[in-house]
Formats: sequence, structure tokens, C-alpha cells
Amino acid sequence: MDSQQQFLKISEEAKDLFLPHLSTDTVIFGFDQNELKVLLLQMTYRKQWLLPGGYVKKDEDIDDAAKRVLKERAGVSDVYLEEFGVFGKNKRSEFYFEDFEDSLWHKQRFVSIGYYALYNPDNANLIVDEFSDKCEWIYLSKLSEIEFAMDHREIIEKALLTLREKISYKPIGYNLLPEKFTLSELQKLYETILDKQLNRGNFYRKIKNLGILRKLDEQRRGGAHKSPDLYTFDDENYKKALENGLTNW
Amino acid sequence: MDSQQQFLKISEEAKDLFLPHLSTDTVIFGFDQNELKVLLLQMTYRKQWLLPGGYVKKDEDIDDAAKRVLKERAGVSDVYLEEFGVFGKNKRSEFYFEDFEDSLWHKQRFVSIGYYALYNPDNANLIVDEFSDKCEWIYLSKLSEIEFAMDHREIIEKALLTLREKISYKPIGYNLLPEKFTLSELQKLYETILDKQLNRGNFYRKIKNLGILRKLDEQRRGGAHKSPDLYTFDDENYKKALENGLTNW
Repeated sequence: MDSQQQFLKISEEAKDLFLPHLSTDTVIFGFDQNELKVLLLQMTYRKQWLLPGGYVKKDEDIDDAAKRVLKERAGVSDVYLEEFGVFGKNKRSEFYFEDFEDSLWHKQRFVSIGYYALYNPDNANLIVDEFSDKCEWIYLSKLSEIEFAMDHREIIEKALLTLREKISYKPIGYNLLPEKFTLSELQKLYETILDKQLNRGNFYRKIKNLGILRKLDEQRRGGAHKSPDLYTFDDENYKKALENGLTNW
Repeated sequence: MDSQQQFLKISEEAKDLFLPHLSTDTVIFGFDQNELKVLLLQMTYRKQWLLPGGYVKKDEDIDDAAKRVLKERAGVSDVYLEEFGVFGKNKRSEFYFEDFEDSLWHKQRFVSIGYYALYNPDNANLIVDEFSDKCEWIYLSKLSEIEFAMDHREIIEKALLTLREKISYKPIGYNLLPEKFTLSELQKLYETILDKQLNRGNFYRKIKNLGILRKLDEQRRGGAHKSPDLYTFDDENYKKALENGLTNW
């Protein structure tokens, strides 16, 4: 069965199963090699890359739909998804199915609800679903080299902007770093999210002042330089800072 | 024509005109008498209060729909709307139209896109549309006394939370205060958004340090106390602070 036939077959089922006009797309950020990366799919019938996205069942809460889709399409579960934006331009997917028949359910207009999550890539057992050829982490620095379907590049950029704003009033790192990390690794995470270099002394002072770190009686061994101290997040204080925010008026 | 008949008539038109399952609801905040207030409607057939909300035309961008709805239902235009959340629980409006026939288009499941705006209430020429009895500003302190339709109280609370987070990394006040204001009035605005008292000295120091204020050679006269200095926002620096954010890592 070619992809035209495959799609027309599921088109009929989709019509009964899902709400029309509504989809979810999720931006999963991971941190690795001192760089942010994002989880993307490539489908069997199209070489452009896509976020793991899908549709909303007729009786399903939107948040549940986003979680189910992520699990079905990428194998990622147990992740806290946060809605960050709606992508509702009338013609946002105008050309995506242009080589398919007009009767295809998937060819209608979709308003997509964007979710994002911070995820430790070590925890991922990625899968490839029946519609996809690939499900991969792609580093942010490589995104300019690939072609995206529809407005998915814009969705990632909006998610990054949201993350950048968030870092100014919430602690970040819990789901992105391993349990034990150095201050230098934490600084790299902040630098990659903010897309700028930070002064080491200032960063160390500010991050310690937040009270969310606990210094361990261990050092990272094996590097060329002096073995740096390892830290972990203080669960209780981190949670408090998440709830109350970092900035005080 | 009673409201059942009126609704069944527009139900047929709505089906042709709008996307199913999608609506917008907008929270307009104003500041007055040192307190925040929000714009609400009361419809002819129901005593519960509602946000100005409506549907999305089949070929209309979502953002444009929210603007059109706000203008049609409340007479408010020229306002910058920001999307802040999606309200997509399956049964969020389950009982709202329960006394209407099942064939009513409006009785289907709707996922609502929430927008909010900060608006100077002096600029409003409120209207009441054909479906509404009232369109009024209600102070936040009075919201606990009124009954809301569906999840509209929750939508307002989420908008307030968004505003509270925003105030930690963006300047706020431009569309809420008159052109000339005292530092005490600006402090009251921050206090009402943050829902807590601020130390006067700390607040004055911090807000001046942002560089977004310009002191005028004028004082507010007529009060019982010493006439306080008037300030205005420095357009250029305010805009820069909006773009770059207030907090620096």
C-alpha cells in the first residue's frame, strides 16, 4: 500500500475518531553535549521534519491528547507537558497535503495547540510509528540545515522564546541535567537557553543565592583540570522556587 | 422570539459560518480606583456572567477571530490581545446549554482559546450586543460574589496568574494607567496584580532602576498630603524593556 492509499484508509477512521480542525504539536527539549536538542520525526511520505503531533479524540481532554500522541508517535511518556501557544493561522498547512485527494480528512484546516517539555534524553526509548521513517533528536545548531513541514520551525522558535522567558522567573534544569552535575554544566544549560555567554562569577553567585542547589561531597574526576564539585538540586527548595517564582518585587 | 427560538435560528447560520469545536474567550483587565477590574457580559437567557467570547470563521486566523468577537460583543477595539492558555477539557461546557435542543450548534464541545489584554478603561465605549443584557466592568474583589458560566472563573484566574508571572520579567502599566501618574499609583497597580503589599522604599528604588520612567515637572494637586510628583513612561526605554525583559542572568 503506498502512502496515498494508507492515508485515505485512515482518513475514514479519523473522521469518526477525532475532532475536526484541532491538533497538538509538542516540542521536547533535551540537553546533551552542552547543547539543547529537540525531538523530531520524518514521515514516510515526506522528507520535511515534523514535531510529534496528532489529533484530539472526540471525548478526550486536550492535555491528554497531547500526552497520548507523544507516546504513540515517539515512545515518550512520563513527561510534564506545558501548553505554550496556539498556531491558528488560516493557511498554515495549506500546501502540506496538496498532492493528496481533497477528500482526505487530514487535508482540512487545523488549529494546533503547542506543548513543550524539558526532558532528560537519557530516559528516552524512542520508537518509530507506522507513519514515520525516523524519530530523532536534532541539535538546535542543526535546525537551520533541515527542512520543516508547515509552520513547525516557528512553533519551535516560540517554544524557545517561552523557555527563555521562563528562565527569568522559574528555576530550570531539573529534567534536563543528570542527577549530579557541575556548576559549569548548569551554566552551559543557561547559556544555551539564553543563547548568550554568561559571566562565570556572576552566574555562580546568582544561582547559589537561589538556594535550590545542594553541594555534594563528590567531585567530577577525569578531566584535564582540577576536579570540580558536583551539585544536585534541593528537591524541596526547587519545588518552592517553582511555585513562588524567583523574582521579588 | 424567545431565546430558544433565537438560538435555533442562528444555529443554522453558525454551522455554515464557523469552525466547529473552537471558540475564543478574552479577559480584558482595566485598572481604576486602585483596583483591577475585568470586562464581563450577562446574556439575555442566562444570569451567569461570561467573558466576551465567540467563534472562529472558517477562513479566519484565530487571533483575528478573538479581535472581531471582542469588538462585536463589547465594542472594544484597538487593543493588543495576547493568547495565554487553552481551555480544552472535554466536559467544560457540558451543562451550559442543557435546556436547549440537542440540535443546537452551540451545544457541541468547544475548546476555547484564551486571550488577555491590559486596557485603559477610560478608552472604552462599551456596547451590548443582541444576545446580551449587560456588558460591564467588575472589580476583582467582587468576582467571588457573582456566578460564572462554564469554566470562565478559571479562565480569569489563569489570566491573572499569567499577568503575575509577566510582571516579573516585563514592565507593566502602559495600557492600565493614565498618561501621567504618581509612583504611589504605579505601586498600587503592582500590588493589585501581585495581590500583596510592597515596601514603598524598595518598590520606588527598583522601579526607578528599570529606567522606564520619566519624572515630569508637575505634581498631583488637591490631596490632603504633600503634592506628589507625576511620572510618565519613557516610550523608548519601556519598549526596549518589553523586548529584552527585565531580569538578567
